[in-house]
Amino acid sequence: MKIAILTIGDELLNGDLADTNTIAISRQLIENALPVREASTIGDSAVDIAAALRRLAESHDAVIATGGLGPTEDDRTAKAAAMAFERSYSLNDKALLQIRARFQEWQREMHPRNEKQAMLPGRSTVIANNIGTAPGFHLQHKQADLYFLPGVPREMLTMLNEYVVPSLLQRFPDPPMRCQRTLGVFGLPEPTVESRINRNVLPEGVELAFNVEFPVVQVKLRSKGEDAQRLVDRAELAARKALGHYVFGIDNDTLAGSTARLLSTAGLTISLAESCTGGLIAQLLTDQPGASAFLERSIVSYANSAKTDCLKVEQDILDRYGAVSPECAEAMANGVRSAARTDISLAVTGIAGPDGGTADKPVGTVYLAMISPQGKRVERFNFSGNREQVRLRTACTALDWLRRQAMAQLSGGILENEA
Amino acid sequence: MKIAILTIGDELLNGDLADTNTIAISRQLIENALPVREASTIGDSAVDIAAALRRLAESHDAVIATGGLGPTEDDRTAKAAAMAFERSYSLNDKALLQIRARFQEWQREMHPRNEKQAMLPGRSTVIANNIGTAPGFHLQHKQADLYFLPGVPREMLTMLNEYVVPSLLQRFPDPPMRCQRTLGVFGLPEPTVESRINRNVLPEGVELAFNVEFPVVQVKLRSKGEDAQRLVDRAELAARKALGHYVFGIDNDTLAGSTARLLSTAGLTISLAESCTGGLIAQLLTDQPGASAFLERSIVSYANSAKTDCLKVEQDILDRYGAVSPECAEAMANGVRSAARTDISLAVTGIAGPDGGTADKPVGTVYLAMISPQGKRVERFNFSGNREQVRLRTACTALDWLRRQAMAQLSGGILENEA
Repeated sequence: MKIAILTIGDELLNGDLADTNTIAISRQLIENALPVREASTIGDSAVDIAAALRRLAESHDAVIATGGLGPTEDDRTAKAAAMAFERSYSLNDKALLQIRARFQEWQREMHPRNEKQAMLPGRSTVIANNIGTAPGFHLQHKQADLYFLPGVPREMLTMLNEYVVPSLLQRFPDPPMRCQRTLGVFGLPEPTVESRINRNVLPEGVELAFNVEFPVVQVKLRSKGEDAQRLVDRAELAARKALGHYVFGIDNDTLAGSTARLLSTAGLTISLAESCTGGLIAQLLTDQPGASAFLERSIVSYANSAKTDCLKVEQDILDRYGAVSPECAEAMANGVRSAARTDISLAVTGIAGPDGGTADKPVGTVYLAMISPQGKRVERFNFSGNREQVRLRTACTALDWLRRQAMAQLSGGILENEA
Repeated sequence: MKIAILTIGDELLNGDLADTNTIAISRQLIENALPVREASTIGDSAVDIAAALRRLAESHDAVIATGGLGPTEDDRTAKAAAMAFERSYSLNDKALLQIRARFQEWQREMHPRNEKQAMLPGRSTVIANNIGTAPGFHLQHKQADLYFLPGVPREMLTMLNEYVVPSLLQRFPDPPMRCQRTLGVFGLPEPTVESRINRNVLPEGVELAFNVEFPVVQVKLRSKGEDAQRLVDRAELAARKALGHYVFGIDNDTLAGSTARLLSTAGLTISLAESCTGGLIAQLLTDQPGASAFLERSIVSYANSAKTDCLKVEQDILDRYGAVSPECAEAMANGVRSAARTDISLAVTGIAGPDGGTADKPVGTVYLAMISPQGKRVERFNFSGNREQVRLRTACTALDWLRRQAMAQLSGGILENEA
């Protein structure tokens, strides 16, 4: 079963509009075990559209095309489909009735221009559009089913779910059982993740893939057939054994989301003191609904005056060791914890760049300090990358410390940093 | 001149990852008057990649491929290119040196697996990657130039600008004159922006398009021919006249970037007190290098105890009016300004949702307060949308207040809110 997507429109190629239909369609299809083999984008030229349709129809069992069904002159998909498959291009009465009904429902007069939207290739089945004016259509050419939908995401998606997916499932009634799981990993570089989970530790019949969504590494486990679910469950266990607590979650879990959930579950309260991350740690945590259950405050102490004033960092520490030092990080963490009276406090100070680096403390030098009832932890990091990357890696490392601390609390012990 | 983009990776077809490279590449190319004719996406199968490369090379003058250059087994682009164009697939010494240099620079040991990234098709020119480990490469097949770049957006974009665009401009030295300018607009809904700039106010020969990058509206002005630059300059003037100070910048300017630049130029210092935005305002400002010139601190006072303790908000205000009230917003702004001794202070408090709304103060209720030497400003907003949208709109409104305040300072007067 080979399925292709074709998105149509000059605006998708000239930088005006990002194509969001391809991922929306592939997500719907994969949920129905219908994998996409290729996606293409082409402009509004009827000749180019016709050539792309012919090519995809020759090499695929199904083609889902979106866009170019509007009332304006540069909407040429129906005409191109007629050209491509040598059909007539003529007024489809059923389509016209649907368009008229839409305008009547809206109590608006139908512009003569909209009649063009009822011009379809011969031997097409109309796909109803219950939201907008552009009807879709479905035609067959040799072994291929071709579905044409409008480009407006909401209309497209409704018609995909109401017509295209059922039609595909009717044609391919027994799509192979599939199961996929994504493990989110933080704190190990991709090659290390890969060498820890080689195919040997996984059961036969499980595909393995890696993906980096900086700074997170994703491990993807996939299987087909009747045993898919069971095999993926076993593979997840094996992968978790190989990666230990570097795995922070599965599928749609984010590092911030997992951290927030664990802090809430453990009933821990936290306070933050952020210098180089400038509010990023707090922002990531407060993106999660319910963050007020655990976050008391974050002091973004960008200037030294803010460090001495809000965090009670002694001027002497700043003078002797500088703001980017283990001493300052620890003093910041102590300062915010005493004032906020939280279970845990965490502080970061560092040099995100592009300026401010020295020989001793180049750009990417970051100190983290965490104080908890179990004691203190202070560490230096040398992160690579640009300002954005240094800040993001610092924030994620801070989240990971908090996550592991909450896990330790929940499991009644202190976790080792190494899994 | 026919240019195609090929993005490679299973994750782009199985719903895991939205392809952002196609639009990023087409934007860069169109700015250089290099239009894209087709974009395709294919999975990790070497046979499929090779077939797609052959097809695109036959029908285009240039192909820009991204993805599949990583160190793992499912990265197969270089091998597929060798297959497609019947080249050897062998270790490229220059590429290997570059990878080694990268690891040396990072002071990290090179994983043996990374050597695979130096395996390239014969007769390739290495495209240096000064950020990551994956070198790109350039090869010629018949009339076509093929460029292979990593899929990581930042690495891809740097290599595109440093190597691919100059190479294309060398091959196509006289692309038709084109000029495009994007105006960033904040604070007006799209239909209002559209009705303020109708085509009548623009000179003949200038195309107009609108785009929303929430919560910013972009106005795009384009022209072709010898007069392109002059016409777009005139159109920009007309558009600015119609939109006034709602325009915060052009082309790659962001609202946070423009605000930061103006604050620095005006020599103003600021402090923030953030409740519902949870650090987002500070994070957006500190994303900008040099933010320490103007940002003294931001107090993320998520809990009421943080408001009374760090911001000296009186318990009485919290009891009588609640934390989400104009009184509390003003007290927060006063509190942070007295402690930080900055020119300006800005405070936000509100209900981002999904929970916490009441009949009087539904989700989306937000108060902003700003104190400056010119006086105070306190306003209530009722933002629509989900948690993320309410937070982002709140943060952008705060940035916009600061931006306009800095502009007023620079122009020696106080700007009206209405342009």
